[in-house]
Amino acid sequence: MEAYLAIVSKREVRDYLPDPIREEEMNQILEAGRASGSSRNRQHWRFILMRDRKRLRELSVLVTRPANLTGCAAAIVVVLTNPRAQFDAGRAAQNMMLAAWSLGIGSCPNTPADEPGLKTALRVPGEAGIPTIISLGYPAPGAPRPRPRAKPEEVLARIDRLPLKDLVYREVYGG
Amino acid sequence: MEAYLAIVSKREVRDYLPDPIREEEMNQILEAGRASGSSRNRQHWRFILMRDRKRLRELSVLVTRPANLTGCAAAIVVVLTNPRAQFDAGRAAQNMMLAAWSLGIGSCPNTPADEPGLKTALRVPGEAGIPTIISLGYPAPGAPRPRPRAKPEEVLARIDRLPLKDLVYREVYGG
Repeated sequence: MEAYLAIVSKREVRDYLPDPIREEEMNQILEAGRASGSSRNRQHWRFILMRDRKRLRELSVLVTRPANLTGCAAAIVVVLTNPRAQFDAGRAAQNMMLAAWSLGIGSCPNTPADEPGLKTALRVPGEAGIPTIISLGYPAPGAPRPRPRAKPEEVLARIDRLPLKDLVYREVYGG
Repeated sequence: MEAYLAIVSKREVRDYLPDPIREEEMNQILEAGRASGSSRNRQHWRFILMRDRKRLRELSVLVTRPANLTGCAAAIVVVLTNPRAQFDAGRAAQNMMLAAWSLGIGSCPNTPADEPGLKTALRVPGEAGIPTIISLGYPAPGAPRPRPRAKPEEVLARIDRLPLKDLVYREVYGG
């Protein structure tokens, strides 16, 4: 899939087939996270790959949208050993979700509703934080899915976002 | 450029040609930011496009690596109207930097060294924050540049990152 199309067409997917994600594809998604840039290359992140669906159901009550975790095929918990590095966590998560999308795999970031509870359940130590849990799975029928032949300009004309004219200033805020 | 290759091969570029970035490409980069997902689609971001190189030189002393701003062809200041949405800012910044990379344009995130000073200079109001300023430009000779025919596995074998085995746990932290 072409990079620019993948970037502008990526949608959050919340309805998944139960099929497990193929090992090679999961590896590619994790490599995309590993390759991410971070401030001073500190790589303040660790990734917990969860494929045990029973455990995912148990943990689902600890995020803001439990259905994403009860229904997903797998999840990647992003752990920040320095919890202030949220910006870098966003970069790594986006890399993994874009890689997934380009492989035909849907994903969605999930915000902890009970971060201390998640840390205990996942044995995350000390000061570390959990900025997000990425739920993953092949899109269910009706869910958004990548269309490798779509045109970026057509995709962009239809997205539910602020228009560029309200979003971009020139030289100064409001300019 | 293929999406997965773009994601895993993206490097920070800090040495730029002075040539201005073509209008159409700049527009594509900004659209990539606009298309980013955000928590509850709140889009708590605004982008200030800076192309005035004199102004960029003036502002350069307010970021941690002034040379990135003195040398770049343009910059995108990411403003967060809700400064706690750093994770989403990371997603949008990564989208823009990957789009740039796929177009042959180098980029680097720059952390404010004096955020209040930047806010004043850029007339950013109230509680808003500036998580990053993305410097942009065509890579100078010797700087990293996209190689659309590279193989992802060869790129990944050479990057300066923790190995996957030290980065990924199974089911629980440390597992």
